[in-house]
Amino acid sequence: MVNTLFLPELREMLAEQNRAELEEFCTTLNPGRTAEFMEGLSNEEAWEVLQYAEPSRRSEIFGYFNEERQLEMLRDHDPSQVAALVEEIPADDRVDLIQELSDERVQEILPLLPVQDRRNIQRLRSYQGETAGGLMTTEVAKLGEKLSAREALDELGRQASQLETIYYLYVVDEDDSLRGIVSTRQLVSSLAHPELTLGDMMETDVVVANVTEDQESVAHKVERFNLLAIPVVDASRRLLGIITHDDVIDVVREELTEDAQRIAAVAPLEDDFLRIGLLTLSWKRGIWLTILFFAALLTAFALRHYEEELQQFVWLVWFIPLIISAGGNSGSQSATLVITAMTSGQVKFRDWHRVLIRESVVSLLLGSFLALIGFAVAVFVAPSVRDALVIPITLLAVIVCGCMCGATLPIVFKRAGLDPALMSNPFVAGIVDILGIVIYINVGRVLLG
Amino acid sequence: MVNTLFLPELREMLAEQNRAELEEFCTTLNPGRTAEFMEGLSNEEAWEVLQYAEPSRRSEIFGYFNEERQLEMLRDHDPSQVAALVEEIPADDRVDLIQELSDERVQEILPLLPVQDRRNIQRLRSYQGETAGGLMTTEVAKLGEKLSAREALDELGRQASQLETIYYLYVVDEDDSLRGIVSTRQLVSSLAHPELTLGDMMETDVVVANVTEDQESVAHKVERFNLLAIPVVDASRRLLGIITHDDVIDVVREELTEDAQRIAAVAPLEDDFLRIGLLTLSWKRGIWLTILFFAALLTAFALRHYEEELQQFVWLVWFIPLIISAGGNSGSQSATLVITAMTSGQVKFRDWHRVLIRESVVSLLLGSFLALIGFAVAVFVAPSVRDALVIPITLLAVIVCGCMCGATLPIVFKRAGLDPALMSNPFVAGIVDILGIVIYINVGRVLLG
Repeated sequence: MVNTLFLPELREMLAEQNRAELEEFCTTLNPGRTAEFMEGLSNEEAWEVLQYAEPSRRSEIFGYFNEERQLEMLRDHDPSQVAALVEEIPADDRVDLIQELSDERVQEILPLLPVQDRRNIQRLRSYQGETAGGLMTTEVAKLGEKLSAREALDELGRQASQLETIYYLYVVDEDDSLRGIVSTRQLVSSLAHPELTLGDMMETDVVVANVTEDQESVAHKVERFNLLAIPVVDASRRLLGIITHDDVIDVVREELTEDAQRIAAVAPLEDDFLRIGLLTLSWKRGIWLTILFFAALLTAFALRHYEEELQQFVWLVWFIPLIISAGGNSGSQSATLVITAMTSGQVKFRDWHRVLIRESVVSLLLGSFLALIGFAVAVFVAPSVRDALVIPITLLAVIVCGCMCGATLPIVFKRAGLDPALMSNPFVAGIVDILGIVIYINVGRVLLG
Repeated sequence: MVNTLFLPELREMLAEQNRAELEEFCTTLNPGRTAEFMEGLSNEEAWEVLQYAEPSRRSEIFGYFNEERQLEMLRDHDPSQVAALVEEIPADDRVDLIQELSDERVQEILPLLPVQDRRNIQRLRSYQGETAGGLMTTEVAKLGEKLSAREALDELGRQASQLETIYYLYVVDEDDSLRGIVSTRQLVSSLAHPELTLGDMMETDVVVANVTEDQESVAHKVERFNLLAIPVVDASRRLLGIITHDDVIDVVREELTEDAQRIAAVAPLEDDFLRIGLLTLSWKRGIWLTILFFAALLTAFALRHYEEELQQFVWLVWFIPLIISAGGNSGSQSATLVITAMTSGQVKFRDWHRVLIRESVVSLLLGSFLALIGFAVAVFVAPSVRDALVIPITLLAVIVCGCMCGATLPIVFKRAGLDPALMSNPFVAGIVDILGIVIYINVGRVLLG
């Protein structure tokens, strides 16, 4: 819902160019809430309001707009105003935004930035999006190891406005090589011991991310070690930047969303659902639909192959969708559970036998229960009670097969170095469909033949 | 993989009761890594190693063990040693652990704790698990508004060892009512202005969580406002505790995993996949499988209803699984995309018409493409080219129906106040299966009849 509470007042202030009230609107509230109250304004109006905020506040409020609005603002407005804003945006966020602008626009804005920011942007642009380098910000507190706690705090106080986080200080030598890390918490606790230097306090066993490391692996480290930020280093351990906890939440969300999409046989979108091009979207879905379609074609050949049996026992045809869907559903349950358990680290490859034992018990329980219901229905339809037995026996077998396939394939995929979510559900569906028909007709042959 | 690098040395140190080396092992490394190196030890051995660590370090290392090991340790060892450990565990984590112990065991441990910790545990136990109260820790920095930056830092230094985070200070009045918030960053930046008090610096527009608020809503606030921690208040705005960013990552992970499970028709597990009881697991899956089974039964009745047509045109039977699966797969793609987009906030209710327009375009593209392939196959099987047209026409119609159902139902569910992930894929599958058959036979009737 768009928050429209302040819209009339805001528009009135703009019409009157009421500087005092607009400045107050930009400063009193939490910047996130200020942005919320501006949601109903046009981009033009919102931009005008922003001009009444102090530069650092302006970039904070701007940071809470959705990406679409942010990009339109950077695209449409006066380059010098835009450059003044870009200067204040945290280094990691502004690079992500600049990547989305046209080259001409970037060339208009870059020359208006201070040389240091310009270099910084160019350097960060050279890192790949899904690596530690692509996530990091270069605004990090680097200090020498000789400082005392009090000196370090004073130094931090001077730098604080340029830093994204001040909750870890990084101790580096003259080559920027990472020596250790001191948390502000340790610093504060050490105020009572003026003789201690950063070198005495620092933790030297630092968890670091390599600049080329995949973002998901970085996120797992941050989660595992409960970090507020992780330092990013190059191969010779030079400190290049840090990745902060808010970016890690985004990575976790992205990772799990991609998982869910892969499980449903969609290649990960890598963009907003409403923003992605329709042709790209069709491609990302069509490629899997087509693969699944060919898998399902096999069922047509199988059924054709069993033409004779099906003509002889017509009532068997009625249960085909039921049997196939029971196998497919139980298989996709197993696959999804195993995939999500592996993503969250609950299931490792070494657990495969436990998974299989548990799945066989569960599938026997589920299969027997559904077989009972199926039998109850089949006795009304089949020519005899003996004939009706085809349905429960098939259901039990198909559900057990479905669960086993669903549980096994993600583990096998993972073992083979592939993403377990990548092809498992389509694979499971395809295999179980065809298995289901083969089991069904052969059970029928034996019992009815 | 279990890290076995230090195992032989560790066992040797234990056998020799080598205090100096064991103490060193517990202190030099990052506590997370210390825990990793202990993974291969038995719980008994690991407990013994822990006794060589200082109390606060001991609880840090303990915090990195997996939950199973943590619980076994609390369950099996000497109550007084356990109580000494429990005293040091952060307030929110220890309550979660204690909830899992038997009442007898809790009664053994609680009396050995200092009265303050005991009261604290009892209070936190009274909050529900999935609310802000269940997530929060009570270890929070509360200060009066008259302090200067320097005084506040010194006071923080004294309290730091008992606090989970010192990165926000909460300014409260004499009733513990929340007045405002000061970040350590502001504090550090204000060191140069000794005349400023916390009251001057504090932000009064504070984003808070209500103690009974659902954890997902809390997580969204923390994400939206990029917070390191969020204060938890009761109805009269008294500060009860805070929730820190690491707990928020866990909530996001839990929420998205539950989504993926619901999409695959499994009621959320609420426990580790390998730890949950098999009967519970069967129940959580069986209930949905049964519902889906009854939906699929409808297809059996439909096919029985069309017995005559199917006996007349036997080749139509061969394509039944193909048609059903094409509709089901495209529907579950749409449903998954819409559900994940709604969870991440990209799609809101007001976007429904955009979603439907986009889905109709994509489904026409996908449907036409698969219809072409289907036609190419059908001409080889069907008696005439005209007859073969049944397949592509049906495929196109079924895929468009599947996508529309898949995209619409999650939005309708959300609008009705239900969890969009709750029933959408099963619903979509059921509806599309039956629709698929009805469309198929009727297209056949018109073209072949």
